[in-house]
Amino acid sequence: MNTNIKEILVIGLGLIGSSIAKASKEKGIKVHGFDIDDKSLQYASDNKIIDNSFNSLVTINNKEITSYVDLIVIAVSPEATKDIINNIQQLWNTQTTITDTSSVKNHLLYKDVTNIVLSHPIAGSDKSGISSGDENLFTGKKTVICNPFNADKKHTQRLEDFWKFVLQMRVSEMSVKDHDLMFAMTSHLPHLISYALIDSIRLSSKDVKDNVGGGLKEFIRLSGSNPEMWRDIFELNDKNIIKSLASFQLSINNLLELITKTKELPEVFSHSDLLKKELEDIKSYKEDSF
Amino acid sequence: MNTNIKEILVIGLGLIGSSIAKASKEKGIKVHGFDIDDKSLQYASDNKIIDNSFNSLVTINNKEITSYVDLIVIAVSPEATKDIINNIQQLWNTQTTITDTSSVKNHLLYKDVTNIVLSHPIAGSDKSGISSGDENLFTGKKTVICNPFNADKKHTQRLEDFWKFVLQMRVSEMSVKDHDLMFAMTSHLPHLISYALIDSIRLSSKDVKDNVGGGLKEFIRLSGSNPEMWRDIFELNDKNIIKSLASFQLSINNLLELITKTKELPEVFSHSDLLKKELEDIKSYKEDSF
Repeated sequence: MNTNIKEILVIGLGLIGSSIAKASKEKGIKVHGFDIDDKSLQYASDNKIIDNSFNSLVTINNKEITSYVDLIVIAVSPEATKDIINNIQQLWNTQTTITDTSSVKNHLLYKDVTNIVLSHPIAGSDKSGISSGDENLFTGKKTVICNPFNADKKHTQRLEDFWKFVLQMRVSEMSVKDHDLMFAMTSHLPHLISYALIDSIRLSSKDVKDNVGGGLKEFIRLSGSNPEMWRDIFELNDKNIIKSLASFQLSINNLLELITKTKELPEVFSHSDLLKKELEDIKSYKEDSF
Repeated sequence: MNTNIKEILVIGLGLIGSSIAKASKEKGIKVHGFDIDDKSLQYASDNKIIDNSFNSLVTINNKEITSYVDLIVIAVSPEATKDIINNIQQLWNTQTTITDTSSVKNHLLYKDVTNIVLSHPIAGSDKSGISSGDENLFTGKKTVICNPFNADKKHTQRLEDFWKFVLQMRVSEMSVKDHDLMFAMTSHLPHLISYALIDSIRLSSKDVKDNVGGGLKEFIRLSGSNPEMWRDIFELNDKNIIKSLASFQLSINNLLELITKTKELPEVFSHSDLLKKELEDIKSYKEDSF
C-alpha cells in the first residue's frame, strides 16, 4: 500500500507524538521531530524515535520544508495546538498536510486554509511522556477526522491513509459540533466526575487508604491523567460538558428517587445492561486521555 | 498452620461462595454447600467444588450439623443474607461460627447471639455465577470483620484465622457504622454514579456506540454488575450514600466554578494526584462488586 507519505514531522513528543513517530518509522517513513522540551527532543534523537530534529518553531515555519515533509502531526494539549498552528502560518495552504490530536476542536477556527484537517486518534494511557511511547498504542483503535475548513481532497485522503495504513486505525468523519458533544458525554464528563469524586473523598478526611472497596480504582486512574490537558479540555468544551452534566444530574435524581421510594431498581439497571451490550466494542479500546 | 477448621458450609454458590469453597478445598477443608438454585448446587457437586450438598435451609437449621461444621459462610445478596440468618436460628449460640459476605451491614441486627461475626471480603469481578468461581479470587486481598454482637473470642479468632490462613487475606476490624460509611464513599457511590452516567447517555439518544472516547469504559464495566445485589446495597445504605453524594455534588460545583471562571484547575487536580499516591495499593485489588 503506497500512502504517498514519505516524511512526516511530529510536533510534541509526549506519549501520543512519540507513539505516532515510532509507528511511522516502523512503516519506513522518515520522521522529523520537535518538542519545546529540550530533554524530550534529545531523548527522541538518542533513542532513534525520530530521524531528524528541528530546534524551534521558527525553523519549522519555513516554506522550504513543504518540499519534503508530507504531513505535520501536532500532538500537544488543546490550547498549545492552537498556538502552534498560529505559529506555522507560512505552511498554511501549502502541499504539506497539517493535522492535530486534540480531544476538543471548537477552538480551532481558521478561514481559507485548505491544508488543515483535524484528527482525534482515540487511545491513550494513564502514563504520559516520551518514555511511554508505544508503536502499538493506536493499532486497531479509531480516529475521528473533522474537516471544518473544507480542506482539499488531496489532504483529507492523505490523512485518512495515514491513520488507516500507517497507524492501522479505523477512521470516521464527524462535524466539530458533533465531536465535541459526543466526547463531552463519553470522555470529558466521566473525567470531571472522577476528579470530583476523588476530591470529595479527600475532603471527607476519612483515611480510606487501607479500606477501599471496589469501584474506586477506575476513578483514581482517570483522575490521574495529565492535569494541564484536562484544564484545557474542560475550559474549551465547558458548554457541552455542562449540558452533559445536567443530564447526568437528572439521572442521579431519578436513581435517588428509586432508591428511597421503590424496589424497582433492577429494571432501571437493565437499561445500563442494554447499553453495555451496545458498547461491547468499546472494551477493546485502550482507555483514555486523548 | 492448624486453624481448627475442618469442615465448612457455604450457603450461596455464586462467584463469591464458589471461590471460597474452592480455596477451602484446596487447603484440605471438607466443604458442604447449599444454593437455592438447584442447577448451581448440581454444578457444584458435579465439579467437586463441594464435597457434600444440603438440599434445603430446613435441613441446615438443625443443631446436629453443629457437631461437625465449624464455620458457615453465607455468600448471597445483602437482603437474602438477613433472611438466611433468620432461617437458621437453631444454629445461633452454638459452637459453629456463622459469617456472611455482604457489602452492607447495618440491616444485620441481632441480640444476644454469640456466634455471628460479620465479614466483607473485598474482591470480586464483573463476572458472576458459580462458573466464574476462582480459588485465587481473594488471595492477597482484604477482609473487613465487624463484630457488632460481641461474639465470643473463639468465634472471632476462628473467623480471622479462616480469612488469613485459608483464604490468605489481610484482615482488619471496623464498626458497622464505619464500614457502611466507608464503603458508601469508596464503592457504593462510584457504582451509583456509573449507573447514572450510563443512563444519561442512553437517554440522550446519541448513538455513541462507535464514537466513544476514553473514560467511559470503567463506568460501563461498573454499571454491568449484578443488579439485584446493587438494589439491596443502595436501599440498605441509602443514608450514607446520600451523604457521600452531597459531598460529591459540592466537589462538582467547585470544579464547575473553576472551569467557568479561572485557570486554576491544575492545582485542584493535583489534590487528586496526592490521593492517587496515597491509594497506590488499591490498584492491586481486583475490582469490585463485593
